[in-house]
Amino acid sequence: MLLFTNHVFQALDEQVARLNPASVVVLTDSNTVECVLPQLQSQSEAVAAARVITVAPGDANKNIDTVNHIWKELSSCGATRNTLLLNVGGGVVTDMGGFAAATFKRGIRFINLPTTLLAAVDASVGGKNGINFYGLKNEIGTFREPEATIISTEFFRTLTSAQLLEGYAEMLKHALISSEEMTSRLLAYDITEYRDDTLLDLLRESVAVKEKYVTADPLDTGARHALNFGHTFAHAFESLAMQRQSPLSHGYAVAFGMVAAMILSHLELKCPTDWLNRYAAYVKARYGTFAFTCKDVPVLIDFMRHDKKNEAIGAISFVLLEKPGVPVINHPVADANIPAALDLYLDMMA
Amino acid sequence: MLLFTNHVFQALDEQVARLNPASVVVLTDSNTVECVLPQLQSQSEAVAAARVITVAPGDANKNIDTVNHIWKELSSCGATRNTLLLNVGGGVVTDMGGFAAATFKRGIRFINLPTTLLAAVDASVGGKNGINFYGLKNEIGTFREPEATIISTEFFRTLTSAQLLEGYAEMLKHALISSEEMTSRLLAYDITEYRDDTLLDLLRESVAVKEKYVTADPLDTGARHALNFGHTFAHAFESLAMQRQSPLSHGYAVAFGMVAAMILSHLELKCPTDWLNRYAAYVKARYGTFAFTCKDVPVLIDFMRHDKKNEAIGAISFVLLEKPGVPVINHPVADANIPAALDLYLDMMA
Repeated sequence: MLLFTNHVFQALDEQVARLNPASVVVLTDSNTVECVLPQLQSQSEAVAAARVITVAPGDANKNIDTVNHIWKELSSCGATRNTLLLNVGGGVVTDMGGFAAATFKRGIRFINLPTTLLAAVDASVGGKNGINFYGLKNEIGTFREPEATIISTEFFRTLTSAQLLEGYAEMLKHALISSEEMTSRLLAYDITEYRDDTLLDLLRESVAVKEKYVTADPLDTGARHALNFGHTFAHAFESLAMQRQSPLSHGYAVAFGMVAAMILSHLELKCPTDWLNRYAAYVKARYGTFAFTCKDVPVLIDFMRHDKKNEAIGAISFVLLEKPGVPVINHPVADANIPAALDLYLDMMA
Repeated sequence: MLLFTNHVFQALDEQVARLNPASVVVLTDSNTVECVLPQLQSQSEAVAAARVITVAPGDANKNIDTVNHIWKELSSCGATRNTLLLNVGGGVVTDMGGFAAATFKRGIRFINLPTTLLAAVDASVGGKNGINFYGLKNEIGTFREPEATIISTEFFRTLTSAQLLEGYAEMLKHALISSEEMTSRLLAYDITEYRDDTLLDLLRESVAVKEKYVTADPLDTGARHALNFGHTFAHAFESLAMQRQSPLSHGYAVAFGMVAAMILSHLELKCPTDWLNRYAAYVKARYGTFAFTCKDVPVLIDFMRHDKKNEAIGAISFVLLEKPGVPVINHPVADANIPAALDLYLDMMA
């Protein structure tokens, strides 16, 4: 159940009352504890009475050691099969908390309260959970739906502009694979100056796009691949940035990756230059660019060949657009067009 | 899919052909590697071509460290979402392999080949998997069905009489909760002198009892509790034995626990003494007894109060029998009848 509300405390207590758990446990990270938890504890009866498990923040801690810690805390506070876990935080907390809940006593119920725009639009929807394992992202995990995901812009007030833009990249992706009209609207919106009510409406619409694909393909074997639009380039940009020891956030990488994917869509499927130019200009103005040179192009292509979402070794699979709203999955790409797209990216975004 | 066959190699290769995986990986333990794997490798094409992951045997190794090792081996041999895991071994291997498969890349397919009678009749059926965690049995796990479970008595030739009797205790349990006729037949059978074809028929019938309960109650919230018949006493016997540092196998504990549960059923529900006497005599002749004194009775009751399957703290929940074939779950038991049942056990089984 997905709830969009700016009365988050009331919504949460209603959900807890509906589920009638034996006990409630909150999972959060040490950042969220400071920013969000005091308010939750003072305004939600369910949270005020709950035991709190706090983990260290960041993707580097999304691993089996932290899950071990969560399991141990659940055990030691006497959690039963009828305990409810509230995951309060960004995507790291909702991914890891979902996995811990799905596996503790063969599965306890959980509610996600995403506190970042990125988690609200992406990680808290779709039933995927997971942890990183020996350098592989989300290598271990399950599919399991939360009892409810409560999405509220009330949590976003303490986010920086960069954090808002990270989440907005996924909203732009949903628009691009969904319709020209929605794409136009989002390219005219300034996320860093959001108002609660308009953002909540945009979020509802954006999450509905993801839900549509997830419902059509719950186990991610076909149509859902459209949600990977821009991600093959994005992962390569992230890997190159990591190699240079100056990490690039996933949201920014997706914003840049979709520029490259639109260029490739133009080369392969004649995606209109008008849309390409409008989108690239928006990204350049808001996000800047990812800096690389033509010497990096073969390195980036090599990263793409090893992307875990490639099913065939050697070939690179892309999601492309005929135009906004018309995604094409598994399109075979002419080899020469991949370096060509990256070269054109350099021309447009330098 | 459950297959009962004494042409196990052919059945396995047929299943692998049907599932058409990208690769096959075998999970087994160091005991099974010696006894069973050479034959499997020489007679099954699927196994001959497979990478083998070997773990240390025994319940003490059914933990997250071993699962970490399995995940790492799967990663390092290039397993994909389309890899098939073959769990070849006893309940420890099928429980742990099921959990590793259910969580690797959010779930890969697996087949169980139970090599002990206990695993064939119990652990490989029902979709439960799991590992122990900080002294709590099966505290971490999921529900996930194997693609197939292949049950064959061909694997049982190297089992000791004690190992056969361990599995037979669960078959006796299935009979007791199922019918007088089946109970009579099993009390007249000598498992230590089994013949392949008759045992395969008995197994088919016995597993069907478990399947009936699992199908009626897949998430173990009601009717399936009947499968816990004898287990409240059995867990207490196991805990007392553990405290004395002379562990009692689960199968034997269940055989003894069902004697106590039948006595309690007689006290509470007038379960006929004829059935009680026949069953107790069979257990005494085949399994011997679990030795304790009246001074241990309060200790045993205390263990029962802390059994994890008790939902209400303090109260002890029992599955009882009106007679073989008529189980009663969640029957409220008069407090004085629990020590009375244990005292009567001492009289009958000493």
